[in-house]
Amino acid sequence: MLPKSLKNLSEELGKLPGVGPKTALRYAYHFFYSPPEEVAALAKNLLRLHEETRWCSICGNAAETNPCFLCGDQTRDKELLCVVAHPRDIGNIEKTKVYRGHYHVLGGTISPIDGGTPERLRLQSLKTRLQNSSQIKEIILAFNPDIEGETTILYLARFLKEWPLVKISRLARGLPLGGELEYTDEVTLGEALKGRRNVL
Amino acid sequence: MLPKSLKNLSEELGKLPGVGPKTALRYAYHFFYSPPEEVAALAKNLLRLHEETRWCSICGNAAETNPCFLCGDQTRDKELLCVVAHPRDIGNIEKTKVYRGHYHVLGGTISPIDGGTPERLRLQSLKTRLQNSSQIKEIILAFNPDIEGETTILYLARFLKEWPLVKISRLARGLPLGGELEYTDEVTLGEALKGRRNVL
Repeated sequence: MLPKSLKNLSEELGKLPGVGPKTALRYAYHFFYSPPEEVAALAKNLLRLHEETRWCSICGNAAETNPCFLCGDQTRDKELLCVVAHPRDIGNIEKTKVYRGHYHVLGGTISPIDGGTPERLRLQSLKTRLQNSSQIKEIILAFNPDIEGETTILYLARFLKEWPLVKISRLARGLPLGGELEYTDEVTLGEALKGRRNVL
Repeated sequence: MLPKSLKNLSEELGKLPGVGPKTALRYAYHFFYSPPEEVAALAKNLLRLHEETRWCSICGNAAETNPCFLCGDQTRDKELLCVVAHPRDIGNIEKTKVYRGHYHVLGGTISPIDGGTPERLRLQSLKTRLQNSSQIKEIILAFNPDIEGETTILYLARFLKEWPLVKISRLARGLPLGGELEYTDEVTLGEALKGRRNVL
């Protein structure tokens, strides 16, 4: 019934994270409604993706060069290393303009349900980086404040005990901008109290 | 910062309906994590889409042939014509296996806010079909039960007055399967009462 090309396309698009068959079909139709040049441009970008983008062998970020722009930047603070789950987290942290250190992409978190075991994470390369550089003074564990993130933080804290001189920190919990005290859960509010800061 | 190919790709994907910049970037990363063969297959499908799929000149559906499979099917009921907003609606109606007539895709609904004026709809071709076929006995207006859908139904009802012998009908309003009487709005419940059916 449905034209084969639309069917095939929607099956491919259904592999996207969080996209079910209905949304995938909607996306497929969207491409059919779009000018062919636009769809061709997207196809070209898809074909180029793996050619032009590679993994940085140091931090594990997606990058145009290896080592990546960030690892090669000599002006960045060599004493700070921020460990993140995914390359996309780096972009979000960079946007804050608060952090000027280096990064290490773990490639996921520990989540036994999804098969996310420590063996799958870039732990060995983290070890190697610590062994090769005595400049690292602090490791910031920047994970989501959920079960997987907390598990990963606990695991890494133990894993990094080999380097007792390196400070291990984590992102603060507290009220987000625009959040409401009234609707904030107890754990977050408790952490916001514990982590209270001087106004001046 | 972000590799150019990832950035371009996420910009293209951001044009998809309901996809914002964060989701688009997530999709782009998903393709980067996927095996290159899979991404190449998707790119190929995208390039083939406009070559292999066309519009049926009769009903306006997306199809492999022109006229489409449905318009060419001689076994279908020529007395029934179902008018829908989008080609995707046809697939949903076909899945019910309740309807065996023909279709006409309007290509949208009347929604002044989005620039959806009657001139943009496939009204002329609907007229032509009615002029050429005296077999059509009933036109079913199958639109979403929202403001745009209702407006389109009212407009079409007036537009089709030229053919007073053709019955104009619309989809029933009522409780959906699994719906709860308690949480059904008054209009729907009222319509469900008015449209009540004998049990036996």
